[in-house]
Amino acid sequence: MNVSVSEARLRTDIERTAEFGAVDAEEGRGRTVLTGTEPNRAAREYLVERLDDAGLDVRVDAVGNVVGRWTPPSADPDAAPVASGSHLDSVPEGGIFDGPLGVYGALEAVRAMQDGGVEPARPIEVVSFTEEEGQRFASGVLGSSVAAGVRPVADALALEADDGTTLGAALDEIGFRGDGRLDAADWDAWLELHIEQSTRLTDAGAAVGVVTDVTGITHCEVEIVGEANHAGSTPMDARTDALAAASEFVLAVERAAKRLADEHETPVGTVGSLGVSPNATNVVPGSATLGLDVRDVTQDRIEELVGHARETLDRLESERGVSTHIERPFDVAPMPTSDRVRRAASDAADRVGVTAIDCHSGAFHDTTHVARETDAGMLFAPSEGGVSHTPREWTDWADCAAATEVLAASLADLAT
Amino acid sequence: MNVSVSEARLRTDIERTAEFGAVDAEEGRGRTVLTGTEPNRAAREYLVERLDDAGLDVRVDAVGNVVGRWTPPSADPDAAPVASGSHLDSVPEGGIFDGPLGVYGALEAVRAMQDGGVEPARPIEVVSFTEEEGQRFASGVLGSSVAAGVRPVADALALEADDGTTLGAALDEIGFRGDGRLDAADWDAWLELHIEQSTRLTDAGAAVGVVTDVTGITHCEVEIVGEANHAGSTPMDARTDALAAASEFVLAVERAAKRLADEHETPVGTVGSLGVSPNATNVVPGSATLGLDVRDVTQDRIEELVGHARETLDRLESERGVSTHIERPFDVAPMPTSDRVRRAASDAADRVGVTAIDCHSGAFHDTTHVARETDAGMLFAPSEGGVSHTPREWTDWADCAAATEVLAASLADLAT
Repeated sequence: MNVSVSEARLRTDIERTAEFGAVDAEEGRGRTVLTGTEPNRAAREYLVERLDDAGLDVRVDAVGNVVGRWTPPSADPDAAPVASGSHLDSVPEGGIFDGPLGVYGALEAVRAMQDGGVEPARPIEVVSFTEEEGQRFASGVLGSSVAAGVRPVADALALEADDGTTLGAALDEIGFRGDGRLDAADWDAWLELHIEQSTRLTDAGAAVGVVTDVTGITHCEVEIVGEANHAGSTPMDARTDALAAASEFVLAVERAAKRLADEHETPVGTVGSLGVSPNATNVVPGSATLGLDVRDVTQDRIEELVGHARETLDRLESERGVSTHIERPFDVAPMPTSDRVRRAASDAADRVGVTAIDCHSGAFHDTTHVARETDAGMLFAPSEGGVSHTPREWTDWADCAAATEVLAASLADLAT
Repeated sequence: MNVSVSEARLRTDIERTAEFGAVDAEEGRGRTVLTGTEPNRAAREYLVERLDDAGLDVRVDAVGNVVGRWTPPSADPDAAPVASGSHLDSVPEGGIFDGPLGVYGALEAVRAMQDGGVEPARPIEVVSFTEEEGQRFASGVLGSSVAAGVRPVADALALEADDGTTLGAALDEIGFRGDGRLDAADWDAWLELHIEQSTRLTDAGAAVGVVTDVTGITHCEVEIVGEANHAGSTPMDARTDALAAASEFVLAVERAAKRLADEHETPVGTVGSLGVSPNATNVVPGSATLGLDVRDVTQDRIEELVGHARETLDRLESERGVSTHIERPFDVAPMPTSDRVRRAASDAADRVGVTAIDCHSGAFHDTTHVARETDAGMLFAPSEGGVSHTPREWTDWADCAAATEVLAASLADLAT
């Protein structure tokens, strides 16, 4: 049931997609493709053409999720399909593989099965979810949250960009507001191919990673309020410096996450954003806002890190006289992948003859949502240097093809 | 030689000035008066009227410094004048005393001398310097830097605001581009009254502070470069987190300044500004820029703190793998005030019958520049809570009057 994928065909599709929203980059190859923009329309239209060319039946749902269904004569048209895909949108000045590899990997897998005479018993669907990166309307994984029933269609369509445009209007604008709701529960199984965005595969010399768990994510918004004052006339012992308190918080998060990671490998804790007010060199900072990101494959360790962050704020209140506030606007539980899909992927890697390793995904993906509704799994392709969300993001074409070959073999197995 | 100032007259002038550029404030009374704006023109025109009313000869120099000269019959018109003043501009949403108290305190001192029949042997000049706060064209003390010969007139006039307007054009616009250069070297002595912006006076129950030294100031711009990376897929031990490094820097500056301040009281070190890139909750920070402010009454201790900052950056490079860069774009040496002027001020406080304490100025003032060219000193009036550069800045009117009484008695003494 092995199939032979075309590296050239796959590469052409990814490189053509890279032209939409292409940006100048000192190094590498970048693109900016935000939902509902002209580059997004172009990328979507190119996909629809490719799905048509391969004989797939294309539909677009109410939130712009694009699906191409292959129902070969061998398949029961009423059987629950096996699905695979990813997303076409990008972060601003992102890379060309994050998303498109999974969409065109899935399409290439179908084309390879067609070419190889594979006769699946179930239809196979190639999927492109709307706004996985969450750069314009939501905080991420928008289309898959609707497909998983986590977010109602109407709520999604009413989401507003900073300029006041709703998702509904933006999809109308590019001609990609369809009907109905793609429902992940209708799928028999799901397998997403994505770049790893880390170096475990290259470190291990593996061609493909089989994802065991997608980490849960908590985002906390932290505010620390001290007292803004003149940097010259306020003695050191009369200050309530919000930035100094915030700095202690940043280091406390790092220390706690490192300690936990020494034991368990998977946990991470990051203060990725920090804003200071009034933010003038000659004024003692009056307030600071921080964005905290905590992830792990277990909810217990996420709670341990968030609890430690709260304790740190309590300590800063008593030791430094600041007042603090913490909110938790984003919270998604860890999600183990399906045993059955994982086994299909590992067996496929064996059959294809490439080295696979088990690993967790520290990044959030559409698969996290899909996994609530059906048996779901993920495959990782190697990321050079672990770099992503930048034009320097890179995966060799041969690696793209090898991972797609494993994807094709997995889908063939799952669909039979 | 005591003179009796009018609290009502002084208050009227400061309150009228507070109307120009007045801002809504939840608490207190604020104003925004940037150089060359409409509120700045109104504040200047009001001053010119008041100087005229008091019979002073008004002149405006090429960079907009406004001077009113009182030459009573008792004075040798060719004698070097004694001068006093401050500034009328403010920071955005600043207070109503910072600047205007010194300008109208000087004018009220002259009016009180006139009323009291004081017969000075020297002319007395009331001065308002252009842009002390440095919010539009320069980094501060602009007019006094020209009066002290530190900055050539042509350079000052060519300074550009963010919108491309030059100082020269802005002064033309409001009708305050005059001729010649006010020269601080022409003065026999200078004494500036200003709010303290600290709590040493209220802590000590003193009505007035006699400034012994104006601290030197160094500003450093620090850049710390790590590696931006995915907050989920980058393990803790594979990060080069620029914000974590920056946080260590902030705390190292605070620690070193506190240690030195424990011994010497005067030194301060502040990281007042911090910018993070890309500044997204889910991205490990790739770079951080910091603004460092270091001040003391001795150059040695300033160098000690800057040296410690440099060592900290070196340590962060070796311990955290970041690269760092530090520049020192602003550097003014500490300036002791004149013995003679200080003595005149202390004696005047004794005669007026108010408690005076010696103190240093941690804030930079026009006096720092003037002191390069002539015998210069400063008087501080109490600041409630030490708060300044905000609408909550406050000095009781009785305290304004008491400090102005000391100013008047000092000027009368110096001019006799």
